[in-house]
Amino acid sequence: MINASPTKGMRDFLPAELDKRKKTLAIIEECYRRCGFTQIETPCVENIQLLTSKQGGENEKLIFKILKRGEKLNESAGGDNELCDLALRYDLTVPLSRYYCNNAANLPPVFKAIQIGNVWRADRPQKGRFRQFVQCDIDIINDPTPLAEFELINATAYTLTQLKIKDFTIRISDRRLLMAFASYCGAEDKYADICIILDKIDKIGLDGVLQQLNEILTQPQVKKVETFFREVDINNLESVAKLLGGTLDRGIVESLSELIAMASQTVCGGKILFDFSLVRGMGYYTGTIFEIAPGGDMSGGSIGGGGRYDNLIGRFNGKNVAACGFSIGFERILSLLGDTDDKEKPLAAAYILENGVKSELVAKQMNRANEMRLQGKTVQFQAKRNNFGLQIKQLREQGVTEIYLLQSSGEIRLVD
Amino acid sequence: MINASPTKGMRDFLPAELDKRKKTLAIIEECYRRCGFTQIETPCVENIQLLTSKQGGENEKLIFKILKRGEKLNESAGGDNELCDLALRYDLTVPLSRYYCNNAANLPPVFKAIQIGNVWRADRPQKGRFRQFVQCDIDIINDPTPLAEFELINATAYTLTQLKIKDFTIRISDRRLLMAFASYCGAEDKYADICIILDKIDKIGLDGVLQQLNEILTQPQVKKVETFFREVDINNLESVAKLLGGTLDRGIVESLSELIAMASQTVCGGKILFDFSLVRGMGYYTGTIFEIAPGGDMSGGSIGGGGRYDNLIGRFNGKNVAACGFSIGFERILSLLGDTDDKEKPLAAAYILENGVKSELVAKQMNRANEMRLQGKTVQFQAKRNNFGLQIKQLREQGVTEIYLLQSSGEIRLVD
Repeated sequence: MINASPTKGMRDFLPAELDKRKKTLAIIEECYRRCGFTQIETPCVENIQLLTSKQGGENEKLIFKILKRGEKLNESAGGDNELCDLALRYDLTVPLSRYYCNNAANLPPVFKAIQIGNVWRADRPQKGRFRQFVQCDIDIINDPTPLAEFELINATAYTLTQLKIKDFTIRISDRRLLMAFASYCGAEDKYADICIILDKIDKIGLDGVLQQLNEILTQPQVKKVETFFREVDINNLESVAKLLGGTLDRGIVESLSELIAMASQTVCGGKILFDFSLVRGMGYYTGTIFEIAPGGDMSGGSIGGGGRYDNLIGRFNGKNVAACGFSIGFERILSLLGDTDDKEKPLAAAYILENGVKSELVAKQMNRANEMRLQGKTVQFQAKRNNFGLQIKQLREQGVTEIYLLQSSGEIRLVD
Repeated sequence: MINASPTKGMRDFLPAELDKRKKTLAIIEECYRRCGFTQIETPCVENIQLLTSKQGGENEKLIFKILKRGEKLNESAGGDNELCDLALRYDLTVPLSRYYCNNAANLPPVFKAIQIGNVWRADRPQKGRFRQFVQCDIDIINDPTPLAEFELINATAYTLTQLKIKDFTIRISDRRLLMAFASYCGAEDKYADICIILDKIDKIGLDGVLQQLNEILTQPQVKKVETFFREVDINNLESVAKLLGGTLDRGIVESLSELIAMASQTVCGGKILFDFSLVRGMGYYTGTIFEIAPGGDMSGGSIGGGGRYDNLIGRFNGKNVAACGFSIGFERILSLLGDTDDKEKPLAAAYILENGVKSELVAKQMNRANEMRLQGKTVQFQAKRNNFGLQIKQLREQGVTEIYLLQSSGEIRLVD
């Protein structure tokens, strides 16, 4: 016999679970719409070149690759990328950048997109982490001003409060601070590697970071990093800016500080926090970056994040197109929600068929049921079971208020 | 530069297109719910064994296979199935049978499932045929009586009429008629092959069918097929039953004829038609089969189909579990619909920001916008563009009724 479990790291959803997921997604979608975004969709499958172009950071190692088919497969030999021509998307941002170039002529000048869909990563499955999971993204394309960041942060905060998640912290920083930091350390060429290592500071602490930096930087460079972190207040932008000094463009500090001030005024129950140690995994970020966590600190883990990725779209059209996005991790959000209140159950009726009931009677009642359905009622048909009492009890528990028994005699009995 | 087109046979959806798709899906889902079905979801990816077990007929040749990852890949060598451990689902029925066994303990005794989701087939792309497309399925598990077929046909017909598709024909037959036919021809062992060839009768006609049968049957057997089709009225069940005679269980004829009579009384604007030449591609059908087409004949092509597949679930749990399903092809349905009527546009407002406007003013108005959003209004923010007249015109076209200009002077001007 075949194993009936879903494949590793993926899930079956029971009706009640799916219902909760769909209701939550509907709230998210509606909130995003009210903030002026419109929804689009891309295929789950993309050309493998798109998904292995070093934009996804570590996530590119986790892609599910799809084998070439027929002749195309016969012609190829060798490594993975010879055998495969497609792959499942690992996020919604890389496909969006392709989408924008493919459809720009039919989109408004500043395009505000909602994307809600599954993504796939061959991650080691663990509590709350799955190999197929839903992301909810909003992105603003073609707005180079901080209004984009402000709208994205506001829309995300607005959505969370509508989901009754009122206590959260949004950390903000800018990749250009990290670039300035690399150059402050005299290691501009190691910027990408420094980012990867610094990204682990929450887990391995400053000492762990310094140890790993030892392997890619010189002794004096590591010393500079250490001194920097001992002296700086990483949650104070001015303190960071002062230490970085001339390696940092003053305009970046002013614009980031204004964004933080604006966002702080509209973030509802949440908190906005500058955090120099924020890195974000993706390779494509070029400016502002943000990450959101439940509660007042980072201990609850990330429930979403995003940032500015001004160069990603240019890979398709050769133009410099501004872009910024904010994604919430739907699975994490769901785990924070309580039970949905099912106060407004729809009206429901059931017809139970006795053995031997005439088909004309069943057909006639089905027509009646269709009329009731037109009026918004849920109407189901069931064969009478041996344990009729239990059958009635279960229907009542489902919220069925009218139950009719179609008898073999031709009579219809209303069950009290 | 990277190619910005979606991968072959797959599609990007613009906001208006996606909107129409979502609204149509919402109607379908709500109709199914009112008919007493509840929605579930399975992963898009399944173990490859499940999808290559000869249940999917020709569709199994079209599956997208996913390459093993890491060590698992290094250990394997040889054919596709050595290289791959997962694949994208090609339909929703095979995954449902796995789902039912995995979750039976938490499902009602007779389980009525809705599934709406993408499936993937590496078909040759052509007009109206895609490599990623949506199917809408309803299935009834654990009801061996024709009530299941009747409910499925009714729910499908009810749904089509709610989509304003009022003119359609549902063809019905039973695989057991084809089994009896194979045995009538003295070729019981060739049942599966006869089905595959007979399935093409719409395309290649009786002569084409006979020619292909020549390759697998003896001369006298082919002669019997020819005589049968010359003498029979394929749309008359009694005529078929009479010719098949003793090879056919009389109970099958009576139950099918009763189902046709019942369904004819509740099918709203549609038509129910017995058709002996109906085969359906899938390997898993064991009893009743149905197929639906727009209009009065088959020239419009299939927009859905289904049937009884009583043995599929037993492959997981070794038990004999009755099951029957009806799937509608969402992409075909969509192509039959006119434009959706967008009479009820939501209230919409926009704030336009002049260059140099103070951030305090923007933040304050964002808070006001959030209040308006709580009341159901869509509120968007835009930077003022050089062509302000065009900007206003486009907003009006989108249905935005209130437009505010936030001026650098600090004043807010309502744009008439």
